[in-house]
Amino acid sequence: MTQQQGLKIAVIGGGSSYTPEIVEGFIKHYDQMPIRELWLVDIEEGKHKLEIVGNLAKRMVEEAGLPMQVNLTLNRREAIAGADFVTTQIRVGLLEARKRDEHIPIQHGVIGQETTGPGGMFKALRTVPIILDICKDIEELAPNAWLLNFTNPAGIVTEAVAKHSKVKSIGLCNSPINFQKFLAQQYDVSEQDVLPEFVGINHLHWVTSALVKGEEKLDELLDGGTTYTAKNVPTFGWSVPFLQSLRSIPTYYLKYFYMTDVMFAEMKEALEKNGTRADVVSRVEKELFELYQDVNLKVKPKQLEQRGGAYYSEAAVKLMTSIYNDTRDIQTLNVMNGNIYDFLPQDASIEVNCVVTAQGPIPLPPQHVPNHVKGLLHAVKVYEELTIEAAITGDRGIALQAMVHHPLVPSVDVAEKLLDEMLEANKSYLPQFFK
Amino acid sequence: MTQQQGLKIAVIGGGSSYTPEIVEGFIKHYDQMPIRELWLVDIEEGKHKLEIVGNLAKRMVEEAGLPMQVNLTLNRREAIAGADFVTTQIRVGLLEARKRDEHIPIQHGVIGQETTGPGGMFKALRTVPIILDICKDIEELAPNAWLLNFTNPAGIVTEAVAKHSKVKSIGLCNSPINFQKFLAQQYDVSEQDVLPEFVGINHLHWVTSALVKGEEKLDELLDGGTTYTAKNVPTFGWSVPFLQSLRSIPTYYLKYFYMTDVMFAEMKEALEKNGTRADVVSRVEKELFELYQDVNLKVKPKQLEQRGGAYYSEAAVKLMTSIYNDTRDIQTLNVMNGNIYDFLPQDASIEVNCVVTAQGPIPLPPQHVPNHVKGLLHAVKVYEELTIEAAITGDRGIALQAMVHHPLVPSVDVAEKLLDEMLEANKSYLPQFFK
Amino acid sequence: MTQQQGLKIAVIGGGSSYTPEIVEGFIKHYDQMPIRELWLVDIEEGKHKLEIVGNLAKRMVEEAGLPMQVNLTLNRREAIAGADFVTTQIRVGLLEARKRDEHIPIQHGVIGQETTGPGGMFKALRTVPIILDICKDIEELAPNAWLLNFTNPAGIVTEAVAKHSKVKSIGLCNSPINFQKFLAQQYDVSEQDVLPEFVGINHLHWVTSALVKGEEKLDELLDGGTTYTAKNVPTFGWSVPFLQSLRSIPTYYLKYFYMTDVMFAEMKEALEKNGTRADVVSRVEKELFELYQDVNLKVKPKQLEQRGGAYYSEAAVKLMTSIYNDTRDIQTLNVMNGNIYDFLPQDASIEVNCVVTAQGPIPLPPQHVPNHVKGLLHAVKVYEELTIEAAITGDRGIALQAMVHHPLVPSVDVAEKLLDEMLEANKSYLPQFFK
Amino acid sequence: MTQQQGLKIAVIGGGSSYTPEIVEGFIKHYDQMPIRELWLVDIEEGKHKLEIVGNLAKRMVEEAGLPMQVNLTLNRREAIAGADFVTTQIRVGLLEARKRDEHIPIQHGVIGQETTGPGGMFKALRTVPIILDICKDIEELAPNAWLLNFTNPAGIVTEAVAKHSKVKSIGLCNSPINFQKFLAQQYDVSEQDVLPEFVGINHLHWVTSALVKGEEKLDELLDGGTTYTAKNVPTFGWSVPFLQSLRSIPTYYLKYFYMTDVMFAEMKEALEKNGTRADVVSRVEKELFELYQDVNLKVKPKQLEQRGGAYYSEAAVKLMTSIYNDTRDIQTLNVMNGNIYDFLPQDASIEVNCVVTAQGPIPLPPQHVPNHVKGLLHAVKVYEELTIEAAITGDRGIALQAMVHHPLVPSVDVAEKLLDEMLEANKSYLPQFFK
Repeated sequence: MTQQQGLKIAVIGGGSSYTPEIVEGFIKHYDQMPIRELWLVDIEEGKHKLEIVGNLAKRMVEEAGLPMQVNLTLNRREAIAGADFVTTQIRVGLLEARKRDEHIPIQHGVIGQETTGPGGMFKALRTVPIILDICKDIEELAPNAWLLNFTNPAGIVTEAVAKHSKVKSIGLCNSPINFQKFLAQQYDVSEQDVLPEFVGINHLHWVTSALVKGEEKLDELLDGGTTYTAKNVPTFGWSVPFLQSLRSIPTYYLKYFYMTDVMFAEMKEALEKNGTRADVVSRVEKELFELYQDVNLKVKPKQLEQRGGAYYSEAAVKLMTSIYNDTRDIQTLNVMNGNIYDFLPQDASIEVNCVVTAQGPIPLPPQHVPNHVKGLLHAVKVYEELTIEAAITGDRGIALQAMVHHPLVPSVDVAEKLLDEMLEANKSYLPQFFK
Repeated sequence: MTQQQGLKIAVIGGGSSYTPEIVEGFIKHYDQMPIRELWLVDIEEGKHKLEIVGNLAKRMVEEAGLPMQVNLTLNRREAIAGADFVTTQIRVGLLEARKRDEHIPIQHGVIGQETTGPGGMFKALRTVPIILDICKDIEELAPNAWLLNFTNPAGIVTEAVAKHSKVKSIGLCNSPINFQKFLAQQYDVSEQDVLPEFVGINHLHWVTSALVKGEEKLDELLDGGTTYTAKNVPTFGWSVPFLQSLRSIPTYYLKYFYMTDVMFAEMKEALEKNGTRADVVSRVEKELFELYQDVNLKVKPKQLEQRGGAYYSEAAVKLMTSIYNDTRDIQTLNVMNGNIYDFLPQDASIEVNCVVTAQGPIPLPPQHVPNHVKGLLHAVKVYEELTIEAAITGDRGIALQAMVHHPLVPSVDVAEKLLDEMLEANKSYLPQFFK
Repeated sequence: MTQQQGLKIAVIGGGSSYTPEIVEGFIKHYDQMPIRELWLVDIEEGKHKLEIVGNLAKRMVEEAGLPMQVNLTLNRREAIAGADFVTTQIRVGLLEARKRDEHIPIQHGVIGQETTGPGGMFKALRTVPIILDICKDIEELAPNAWLLNFTNPAGIVTEAVAKHSKVKSIGLCNSPINFQKFLAQQYDVSEQDVLPEFVGINHLHWVTSALVKGEEKLDELLDGGTTYTAKNVPTFGWSVPFLQSLRSIPTYYLKYFYMTDVMFAEMKEALEKNGTRADVVSRVEKELFELYQDVNLKVKPKQLEQRGGAYYSEAAVKLMTSIYNDTRDIQTLNVMNGNIYDFLPQDASIEVNCVVTAQGPIPLPPQHVPNHVKGLLHAVKVYEELTIEAAITGDRGIALQAMVHHPLVPSVDVAEKLLDEMLEANKSYLPQFFK
Repeated sequence: MTQQQGLKIAVIGGGSSYTPEIVEGFIKHYDQMPIRELWLVDIEEGKHKLEIVGNLAKRMVEEAGLPMQVNLTLNRREAIAGADFVTTQIRVGLLEARKRDEHIPIQHGVIGQETTGPGGMFKALRTVPIILDICKDIEELAPNAWLLNFTNPAGIVTEAVAKHSKVKSIGLCNSPINFQKFLAQQYDVSEQDVLPEFVGINHLHWVTSALVKGEEKLDELLDGGTTYTAKNVPTFGWSVPFLQSLRSIPTYYLKYFYMTDVMFAEMKEALEKNGTRADVVSRVEKELFELYQDVNLKVKPKQLEQRGGAYYSEAAVKLMTSIYNDTRDIQTLNVMNGNIYDFLPQDASIEVNCVVTAQGPIPLPPQHVPNHVKGLLHAVKVYEELTIEAAITGDRGIALQAMVHHPLVPSVDVAEKLLDEMLEANKSYLPQFFK
């Protein structure tokens, strides 16, 4: 860390409703990681939200009595210059685009989800170029900074950055930390006492070992049919015989793959009742911003927890603190594969336990990679690679291959129709496809 | 070859309606490969058919005026002892079992096909133990023999033999030789003048290069939307833009994966109209055996060509001739992967161009493996590996994992139901699952 | 750990002069790792030494006032039964054999060293069968025990155990911990504040990164020509331009490879003056055992530090403590390669930074593996693999291949002569070669 | 092949004394490969020789009565433009440089050979930039041409071309074809009837299988201690027990590694008696050129066979003919590794059996790679990679690493001295090191 007198942190997409959570994290961990300057930056369209949430942030810091400067800006370069950490929490196209990502596939009989399937693909096509643009600024203005990315689809975005820029970046998801908390709670021990092992990639992982105070509890968990859930995914139970023969606990995102029919039906029904998840989030966000405007509010409001994405900020702050302090603790992060999985490319992003040092995360080879999940894992990774290539080149043929080879897309015919419709619907955010 | 005075060949499943074709091949190639003894062996239930087809074989050899002894037997060990080549063309459970393989999945909304999907899986579960039993005889009685397997699913069976016996074996499919003939015909050149390159595994390959007189014709073929078909698969056209972005020609079996919806609809309709393919074949076979009984018939009847499986025997005889004569020509065969595909296990069977020497085939590394097909390839290979393991162990959990991870099976729920029903329906052929 | 009331530890070769050091370690760390029973076991020939050193151990424990039972025995099975940790510090053939390992090669113009070159090879041939015999006892009597091996050549022995037994084992060397201490001292920081990265295998590693408080100091160290030394290796300086182009710090054992001529000359001269290193050690040991006999001695005597092998025991106790407490700290250990180095077999032993959990060590992929050292690394690993195979089979041809392909053996001719002479000289310890 | 009316061939270094051999090859194979234009090109310093040998070539073609145009030129670009095949047989620095490559190492106690060890390294440093320069011309003027390289060290040069240009190139050595001929002669069969398998890289290979009419003869050959020799290498016998445990036949170049002491002694003695091999060759060449000047000489003179390098031209003509005719026969060539050896980089050059098609050679994975030779193979390959990097960059540090890590260089100290002296001696040919 170059900044001896304290750190500079830039939060891209600072006007997000999540911001109070990360600010709370910075405040709580000030002792381990003294932040001198916190920059919240957003785009012109987000100016109003940035002001609301930025002012809340200022009140929170003041309430905590810390010498942390909070700066609001629309000038990204100013925010990035000399930063130690840059985080991104942006949504290109806003919730309107998410709505389309969720709606259109469902109309074609395909899972409509913002990170998985065609929805996630289009989110990636819109997001990757913007993130790479941010990376150019970082390369120029803060070459030693760490980019912590939790913009979804986080695995794809992280891989795109690693392949197409020189920025040191790490992808983050709250799913692993949630499982860790679930496991600790289940056995009534502290979080430090558990060590789950994750095999896979972002939003497509299997827990293949669950150590509690050094003892393996996986069989116990599987035989009980235990599983864990999260707020933004409907909570179906898994088939116990399936889990027992799988010998690992799939992430809830795997329900889109293993329970496609049920999940689709549920989605469709929910859509008819409440609109898509995007519609729900829209309503929650509206309420949150009303709360944030209250000048008497000086802490993170409880209601934010219903927003989903629990513990994202905790994960991010924990990671920064560990890098800053060379803590060498184990965290589950999205990093480059290297030799970890010998059937995936070395430059593929994977979600894996890492030891976090001052020089960044070092991935830990999983003790056991179940053979039966390798094919699905590889298939989704191929889709991810093609999506990155399509995002960079704007090549429709490559985009079609990505869509066709996504395991949730049922046929070339559907893929072609979906691609055409979604490209058209996202036209204004995908100039690379309309040259 | 140990037999200096001529070869001994054992055809397991010699009572098959295909036998006249391979006999014709042996007669035609007698000059390059002098066969002293041809043994046609079958099981008790096939005795009647064996006699009919065996007598036809005898008449054919006599007509050709060759000193080739044709022996009919129900004693497999006698047929195998000292053989130079053993071929297998068996159907465990007969056409009745095939009918179930095709019927049951369709009732659950899944492709019902005898080599692909749940149908192929159950064919494998029934067949692998029998083939390994044959291998024990070969190990003991003809350790230097080559086993040429064209019993389907040929890729799985070949891999099972390589993993669980010491027999030298090669898997064969007529699909590559058909493409070669198509290509030669298309360009009006001899078969020796074309060299297509196949990437993939049995019934799941892509043609990634098509040399005609040394010149690459792939682009030309793709841009014309050209493709090739075979008798036992409905002939839909592929989407041309899809082919162009795929930059390779998929085998017709890939329609089950790329055009699942259309193929399923077609299958269901055909089922209602004509019954399954098994029903059709039943009728054809009945007619064939009536023909075979005619004592005046002394050559392979034309009608056999309608049976499907065109050029299977040509492929088999060509392979034997090349091994016998150390021809070193290129043939497309099912052999062990080794280092050919670095993302598949070394002991996986693959379908690949090989140079055939007296010591057997040596695989040729494909010049280019399209990244976008690796995931699907890996996924199906994982299913194949699990199927072999299930066939050997009779473990329901492993069978469930195989079924769940097959890309054509839509959910765990469907997999569980299909597995239960199909296991029950195949009970008498799957003792390993009902211990 | 099964033993809730405290641990049982078995020290094989408990009569070694090193024992007071490990006992001191157990006493110092009793708080973190409460040992209930310490078993020192030795063979009949070592009975006298065992008594001397065992009684000293008892006095040390008594002096410390700890409830740790110290047991002396010649019954290995009794010592092993139910143990949590087993350590081995044996010397098959005693110092007489070492003397031959050092003498004979020098007479043929080859480096004579007890772990590197032909000397190490013969130490391995004698030791591997004995260790595997111990492993059989552990498999039977203490299947959950960890075997901590610091019997040299530790890399070969550890690999042999992994390949030929089911015992969970870890190999240990003091060289990494020595470098860590050197680095901490050099920068005047605590040992926790440094993190060197080791690339290679036992006694053949390169330090490719040297973090001090999170900052990379490698260039600084190389440009200063800095290096580190240990007591049992002559201390020549390295060529600074060589180090600078190597961009890593070689272990002192690499002097046998990089400075063969100088090292050989020095060895030969030393041999003429003082005899081999074995002769020197003999004299030191004699003095140590005289000291140990003193009933008033109740602590580890200072003189033991001159014995060489500094910090071996510290490394061992640190490892046990980390496993027992699931500490997850980073230690440099000898474990199986897995996918760490893609050019070495998965079951090769490597010396690598590991995170130590309650389930054992997890290797950390090095951030950078210099291309220029891969060949030498691979060459020595091949020698190690062949040596293990020769030790197990007693096959002279394989032993010859091991000797020929060791980079320090100059020709087939020398290899053949050396092999014959050394086999003969070790006849009584190598029954496998004289069946 | 673009030239329908006949081929254009450019021979770079056409003034070589070898040229009559390749011309003879072209004449003999005119039926299979009609050459319209043969261009012999050389540099200014070689003008006189070019004229002598070129005129002989013209007389040879005339004598044969073929419509093949022979052109002599000093204008490389004119010769290359539109060529179908380009061959290189150049010697940067002429025999004087070779003399230094052989002399200087011997004075430092190191093998002095023109392709192996420091001599080969310096030949590579001089040659690689020139060849890459030629490649630039080919890229521009004959992008579809095949470059057939038999300029030594052929493995390094071929790898450099593959890494640093887009030219399609193949490396050639006469050693494999010599073994093939030896084997055929030994068993009194035609060359088509043998199939030896080579494992390794250029001038560092092992014959691991020797099929004669389809039967394995390796054991027979090894147990007889049989080996093969070539004119430019002293012919010592191998140790039979060594060969038997090696289970393969090493190329004669491996004597430098396996019999270093004897080979060095022999070299030194020969140097004192006859000068280096360069001196011998000098004398032979002088005599040859005298012969070539005889206007009555209209065929390749017998004496050329004493020059060494037997069958080089046969190998080259055979390769061209097979590419031109899409022959698909097996030849042993230097091509990129790909996945053939999983412990070497994919872009390493290897010497391997290939099937030669109209699109070039496809490498055949060896059936068996002996584990014991992998280390030496890897070590030499690392040296080769570093040498290429040094040749391109002119970086002394990298050159030092190459020299140090060559298995024949005994120490860093010797490497440093040798490097300095040889760089200085080659100064005028190595501008990249003296910027």
